[in-house]
Amino acid sequence: MSAGGPSLRRRAVLLGAAAAAVGGGTVTALAARDAEPEAGPSAAAPMGAEGIGFHGVHQPGIDTLPAQAHAVFLGLDLRPGTGPADVRRLMRLLSDDAARLMSGRPPLAAEDPELPALPSRLTVTFGFGPGLFDAVGRGGDCPAVVRELPTFPTDRLEPRWSGGDLLLQVCSDDPVPLSYAVRRLVRDARSVTSVRWMQRGFNPARGSEPAGTTPRNLFGQRDGTANPAAGSPELAEAVWVRDGPSWLVGGSMLVLRRIRMDLDTWDDFGRVGKEMAVARRLDTGAPVTGGGEFDEVDPLAVDGRGMPVVAASAHVARAKARTPAERMLRRGYSYDDGPTADGKPDAGQLFAAYQADAATAFVPVQARLAESDVMNLWVTHVGSAAFVIPAGCVEGEFVGQGLLGA
Amino acid sequence: MSAGGPSLRRRAVLLGAAAAAVGGGTVTALAARDAEPEAGPSAAAPMGAEGIGFHGVHQPGIDTLPAQAHAVFLGLDLRPGTGPADVRRLMRLLSDDAARLMSGRPPLAAEDPELPALPSRLTVTFGFGPGLFDAVGRGGDCPAVVRELPTFPTDRLEPRWSGGDLLLQVCSDDPVPLSYAVRRLVRDARSVTSVRWMQRGFNPARGSEPAGTTPRNLFGQRDGTANPAAGSPELAEAVWVRDGPSWLVGGSMLVLRRIRMDLDTWDDFGRVGKEMAVARRLDTGAPVTGGGEFDEVDPLAVDGRGMPVVAASAHVARAKARTPAERMLRRGYSYDDGPTADGKPDAGQLFAAYQADAATAFVPVQARLAESDVMNLWVTHVGSAAFVIPAGCVEGEFVGQGLLGA
Ligand code: HEM
Ligand code: HEM
Repeated sequence: MSAGGPSLRRRAVLLGAAAAAVGGGTVTALAARDAEPEAGPSAAAPMGAEGIGFHGVHQPGIDTLPAQAHAVFLGLDLRPGTGPADVRRLMRLLSDDAARLMSGRPPLAAEDPELPALPSRLTVTFGFGPGLFDAVGRGGDCPAVVRELPTFPTDRLEPRWSGGDLLLQVCSDDPVPLSYAVRRLVRDARSVTSVRWMQRGFNPARGSEPAGTTPRNLFGQRDGTANPAAGSPELAEAVWVRDGPSWLVGGSMLVLRRIRMDLDTWDDFGRVGKEMAVARRLDTGAPVTGGGEFDEVDPLAVDGRGMPVVAASAHVARAKARTPAERMLRRGYSYDDGPTADGKPDAGQLFAAYQADAATAFVPVQARLAESDVMNLWVTHVGSAAFVIPAGCVEGEFVGQGLLGA
Repeated sequence: MSAGGPSLRRRAVLLGAAAAAVGGGTVTALAARDAEPEAGPSAAAPMGAEGIGFHGVHQPGIDTLPAQAHAVFLGLDLRPGTGPADVRRLMRLLSDDAARLMSGRPPLAAEDPELPALPSRLTVTFGFGPGLFDAVGRGGDCPAVVRELPTFPTDRLEPRWSGGDLLLQVCSDDPVPLSYAVRRLVRDARSVTSVRWMQRGFNPARGSEPAGTTPRNLFGQRDGTANPAAGSPELAEAVWVRDGPSWLVGGSMLVLRRIRMDLDTWDDFGRVGKEMAVARRLDTGAPVTGGGEFDEVDPLAVDGRGMPVVAASAHVARAKARTPAERMLRRGYSYDDGPTADGKPDAGQLFAAYQADAATAFVPVQARLAESDVMNLWVTHVGSAAFVIPAGCVEGEFVGQGLLGA
């Protein structure tokens, strides 16, 4: 898929029959499909063959919605001594790998057509951390909020889940092509980078509920209900950078927080309390003040005795954007690395928020949540990283080229 | 589903519409479905609602085929001082949890209908290791091969992936109900057990290829081709114990090996060599000696110059059962815990073989592979555990009841 106007919606392409029965080793995107990926799998068109285009105004993996079922987030550090030419070469190579992998092909010179053949909407998204800007002598171009995200009183951050010079977010509906893509990308990156952290996430399997259903997190909540709709102008306004250098316009900013959930306590808590913590019902995701899932919570609703239904400290009451600049796209994943030896859960959410400017979106919203949010009873932020997401690139170019030079 | 004759095939049941839109908190299996699970998901019947029955002659999760897309294998150790009454209580509780979770309901007294509601063919399978037999004073009932699996010269076993008193194999097509099931089961087990190891595995996502396609492993090979077919008498003969006490007849034996794959070397190896290592083609899984995927490799085939096509050390030439007693059902999963900080893969296969007697199946076959198998160039066994798989149980009873007492 080549670049188009900002209103061009990225489409899934259905890779040819060749993808399902790889014979000669070449797989090409045969037909751009008009149907959106939400059309869901069928026996005739297994979902594995669905591919997302790498090239375009925006990087893929952001407005690729619904979010794929599986994700690997990788925080890479540039090895000491890595200079601008190395970073340029790296981003040229990784962009080429990403374009090939997303279209169902192995990286250049690799001889394995089988594992990448069915990408299942594989996407690769790159983010630049402060260390990368510094390494290429462009430290001044790194926004202050990415260089140093404010700390919040509820933070319990561990260095092993925080920071990073270069982010790779790799997503797919299928863990097999995902695993292959990660191993090839990391292999091509490892001469100049080391892996600072790796975080694996999941959402409900594609097809487990009817297409378009809001996913559930490990608290059992429908999570993502109030997100701007896929393809909407609201999403575009919330997510994409409008002003700045060409490598950034059409880009975004990612804040990734590893948020541990205290599932033992949550599981024992009463249902009413759980619902009041968010002000939405567990079963349907509808506001506790009435209506359907996509209706808004009414903060002023009162019960029969004239008491407010929604606590001022309910999660959505605190989190709701108070200005347009506070809006963001939450594109998170559950993680589960437990149980520990003691049989305790080690699980939670990889909260991933895309926005044009984290300084006006994530930061004030999280400041409100840290100040007061019933959900703080059960959640703890244990990791944090922020990245500039450069714009997408056209064929023959690479992500970040305008910053790094050709 | 209640117990039936040994020829009764376990069927998936489609849980009612209630499962898709949990309202009142009760979800029941409404209709036994005649179609096999292979029928695949559709918009009308999302795959999440498919449930497998817990009760029956055999435990579920063995002839539940195709194997679900996700698995968690847990090796639990009984805490010091755990006696027969504790183990009895534990197995009664876990059997009840498993039956509920598999039918889309939370454990007794848990108030969360949402997360378990869409089990996506969730299964829970229990295995007993030597420590459990000893703890209940029945050490003599533990077969020698489970008590001490022979070592093989190629073994590089690490204690952290080996052994265990009690196995839980939990599988589902969806990682979300799987995560919930594991956390609830472990929670109910942790007062008397600790977690010795936890291993997560995956297969291609359900629906990524047409139903019934043999899954690919991380080498890109179709893996499982020569397995006995689902529902066949060959499978029953290979897998189920026929003689012994009632708690064992209809049971099985599991050998679980954590096998690391050297993916860097594999990825760089030529295609012809890779295919010759197994004697099957990478694209279709068909024998290199010709025919389709489900044809057998012809060990005597010769090329134009009269040279044998299949090396005597090719994996299938070595692995192929030489007597009926050597047959097994391979029901493995890929694992990927990498990359390491250095960017190296940490991935491979959770090789899980079910058989009536590991002494006559896994042991001689693995002895041949350890002696000579081209695949040894790229694979290393780093973990090993063996378990007796008791028979299934009827409603109101628990797995292992005949051994442990009621
Ligand atoms: C593990 C931690 C969290 C959990 C379990 C969680 C859960 C939820 C749930 C269930 C909802 C209601 C449904 C929806 O609209 O998605 C929600 C809404 C929301 N959350 Fe969170 N959340 C978490 C952390 C955060 C954080 C860290 C932020 C941002 C700093 C955030 C921002 C929002 C926003 C903006 C909304 C939409 C509010 C509205 O406009 O109605 N959440 N969250
Ligand atoms: C990571 C390690 C391994 C890999 C990648 C692997 C891969 C394969 C592949 C690609 C096939 C051919 C397709 C098929 O029939 O499934 C195969 C066949 C087979 N493998 Fe393995 N295998 C591994 C380890 C083992 C082990 C440890 C055993 C048993 C000790 C074993 C037993 C078998 C058997 C019995 C067959 C079928 C042979 C026949 O009847 O044609 N494999 N394996």
